[in-house]
Amino acid sequence: MNEPEQYTLPGLALSAKSARTREQPISFLIAEALRNPRLINLAAGLVDPLTLPVAECDAIAQRLFADPARGRAALQYDTTVGLAPLRQALLAHIEQLEGVSARQMGLTENDLVVTTGSQQALYLIGDVLIDPGDIVIAANPSYFVYAGALSSLGAQVLTVPMDTDGMVVDEVEHLLARLERDGRLDRVKLVYCTSYFQNPTGLTLSAARRPQLLDIVRRFSKRHRIMLLEDAAYRELRYDGPAHRSIKSYDALNRFTVISHTFSKPFAPGLKLGYSAMPPDLLNAVLQQKGNHDFGSANLTQHIALESLRDGSYHRHVGVLERSYRAKRDAMLEALDRHMPQDGTISWTRPGGGLYVWLALPAGFDTSRGSAFFQQAVSRGVLYVPGAYCFQPDERGAIPTNHIRLSFGQVAPDQIEPGIERLAGVVREQLNTQNSASGTQHFRSPAEALG
Amino acid sequence: MNEPEQYTLPGLALSAKSARTREQPISFLIAEALRNPRLINLAAGLVDPLTLPVAECDAIAQRLFADPARGRAALQYDTTVGLAPLRQALLAHIEQLEGVSARQMGLTENDLVVTTGSQQALYLIGDVLIDPGDIVIAANPSYFVYAGALSSLGAQVLTVPMDTDGMVVDEVEHLLARLERDGRLDRVKLVYCTSYFQNPTGLTLSAARRPQLLDIVRRFSKRHRIMLLEDAAYRELRYDGPAHRSIKSYDALNRFTVISHTFSKPFAPGLKLGYSAMPPDLLNAVLQQKGNHDFGSANLTQHIALESLRDGSYHRHVGVLERSYRAKRDAMLEALDRHMPQDGTISWTRPGGGLYVWLALPAGFDTSRGSAFFQQAVSRGVLYVPGAYCFQPDERGAIPTNHIRLSFGQVAPDQIEPGIERLAGVVREQLNTQNSASGTQHFRSPAEALG
Repeated sequence: MNEPEQYTLPGLALSAKSARTREQPISFLIAEALRNPRLINLAAGLVDPLTLPVAECDAIAQRLFADPARGRAALQYDTTVGLAPLRQALLAHIEQLEGVSARQMGLTENDLVVTTGSQQALYLIGDVLIDPGDIVIAANPSYFVYAGALSSLGAQVLTVPMDTDGMVVDEVEHLLARLERDGRLDRVKLVYCTSYFQNPTGLTLSAARRPQLLDIVRRFSKRHRIMLLEDAAYRELRYDGPAHRSIKSYDALNRFTVISHTFSKPFAPGLKLGYSAMPPDLLNAVLQQKGNHDFGSANLTQHIALESLRDGSYHRHVGVLERSYRAKRDAMLEALDRHMPQDGTISWTRPGGGLYVWLALPAGFDTSRGSAFFQQAVSRGVLYVPGAYCFQPDERGAIPTNHIRLSFGQVAPDQIEPGIERLAGVVREQLNTQNSASGTQHFRSPAEALG
Repeated sequence: MNEPEQYTLPGLALSAKSARTREQPISFLIAEALRNPRLINLAAGLVDPLTLPVAECDAIAQRLFADPARGRAALQYDTTVGLAPLRQALLAHIEQLEGVSARQMGLTENDLVVTTGSQQALYLIGDVLIDPGDIVIAANPSYFVYAGALSSLGAQVLTVPMDTDGMVVDEVEHLLARLERDGRLDRVKLVYCTSYFQNPTGLTLSAARRPQLLDIVRRFSKRHRIMLLEDAAYRELRYDGPAHRSIKSYDALNRFTVISHTFSKPFAPGLKLGYSAMPPDLLNAVLQQKGNHDFGSANLTQHIALESLRDGSYHRHVGVLERSYRAKRDAMLEALDRHMPQDGTISWTRPGGGLYVWLALPAGFDTSRGSAFFQQAVSRGVLYVPGAYCFQPDERGAIPTNHIRLSFGQVAPDQIEPGIERLAGVVREQLNTQNSASGTQHFRSPAEALG
């Protein structure tokens, strides 16, 4: 069956979607970390390995398999929508997080779907709503993995800025009004908002903006309903400040909002489970699509997740994580206070939860992948996520390059200060080099910034 | 936030793909089984619950979690492509199944991807290759869940018949030649073939046809490579007859063929793991897409699967399944011999493995969902899969309605004969009613047959 020697191998004829799909930048960062294991990794959004619930999962697995009927159920297929008792337990869990009853949110367990991480829910929602050229509104900066997925679906991602109260919802209103005037409102399918301790900024949508954002989406849902996708992945990693109700909790009839949660951040990524509540007509479309993708996520890990909610180990573990990450967050903020130049041109967020601190360097700095700054940081032994990955290009195609996403997630506590100290060294050096550099913001084209 | 009373709720604006996506027929059958739990279920493709490896998974989970480092690794994220030592073990497993070395197949573990069941691999391959209007060639009948996924991607599924040697590969050649004459060869992206104990027929592609099909695909790969997708889900459930090498094993340079395997049939569906080997350029596209879908399947179940290969429990379990299903297959064939009318107008396959027997009733019979025959069967207490679900419409849009897919997978051994006896009763009754019915084949339009 070998080919004749003269045979020239033709290439593949990939789909338009595949041609639109780029490698996730995360791959490059993982490769960089693997190449140099002695780097202090302030890039990885991984959870802290030392806090993973090994003993809890051990006890749960032993209990599950000790009952042959239960063990067999966990090893059999279940449904596309997910294990019914798990969805019931998750609904009760959501009620507890909200302080609002399921009835008041128009929800039953049949409005929930269990997915392969919350990423799958985000993807499926894009897949059932977006045709090439359709519009998604998101904050700038935003979660870069989802931005990549949306681009592969052909979405046009239009952005609004963030401030310390999170996504600037007035700007969402202005943008929608402008799109309506331009006759493009029919192309708007989705507003995406990470409402708690956003990746990459650590910022949270303020209490006042929550019902306001819902109201805006509702008012602009004229010929079709625009969906509001609330990504609550980091919600339960809260170290100080108020426990906000979700945007979803204001959507009393379950018509406009999807909320997606995950087990990866508050419990264990290895279970690879997320769960989302959404309007029934959207859920129906999502389930038909998921029926084609996999007809149901891993059933065994769903049984384990259920038991973690039932036996209290889930909630105990969230408490452990809070204490552990709070200390690491504090260590990072203290190190930044101690080591970063305090000349008024450098600032960073002080998140009340999540895994990230967002560092803004002076205009003119370039922290992106190919930059001298990035190379300097790696050669001094510290890895970060270039902020450029988290931005959508503006109307002129430009992306700010002077930000850095720092994570205290995976890094060992005693490595945080040395990591920040090394990074501050690179910043100081660049400041000296650029000295009295021009105050104008430096932009690069996306290809340069992301390349 | 309640809507004003006069407010008319606008609908969703779903994507074109979502509009193309139908509910999988399997949902209706599951609902039917749930509505009437006393039905003898010869429809379900589920594996036998009594054979699930509970004790094996119990021992594996205890061992995994007893080692804190291993336990933590299993609960953390891994990569999009899947756990490296699992891919190594799977490559060795494939070598063992083939009796051919990985080198002779041009494969390393880096040509393998681990997916959320083999369904996800089938879906992703469609997603990266198919634009609406592109052509997939499949056998008629074929696996209906994949046919649904292909339709949602906008594929045109063109078919070739089956005979007792499986897919008629000469017809694949004739079809490709015709498409080339019509200037449509550029639209052909994929040839789909379930090469072992096919769902729904139980038929296996003969040894001679395997290299022949690869050669056809290679010869028609002129401007681009047509991919040959070999679905080997039932391969290891073999009860008699030869253990054929895969089609993939003839593709010495790993250029034209994907082979997909699963843990669901030979071990446990609850792990929800499949694995596929494919050409590097296709794998690259698949991984970029999977990065958007979920950036990796459940890691915990990958660790369990790895241990099942290492400690021998996987192979022991395949032996248990062989003995159990062989007895059930024999019981079904004996019951058919004993109870079905033997007038020469009724025939069924005698599969050497897998979970299915395919029953062909006389032309003129209508076994589809809305038919009197189906209602009769349900009221007598037996459920089957109407054959119509497994066919693509022919050029006139017609689908044969006189077939039945029978499964001996989930049903208890002592229920097989009573189930077949009930079904034979319905057949006999219809034969009497139709008596000397016309010999012409009865077709219904797809909407009628599938509705």
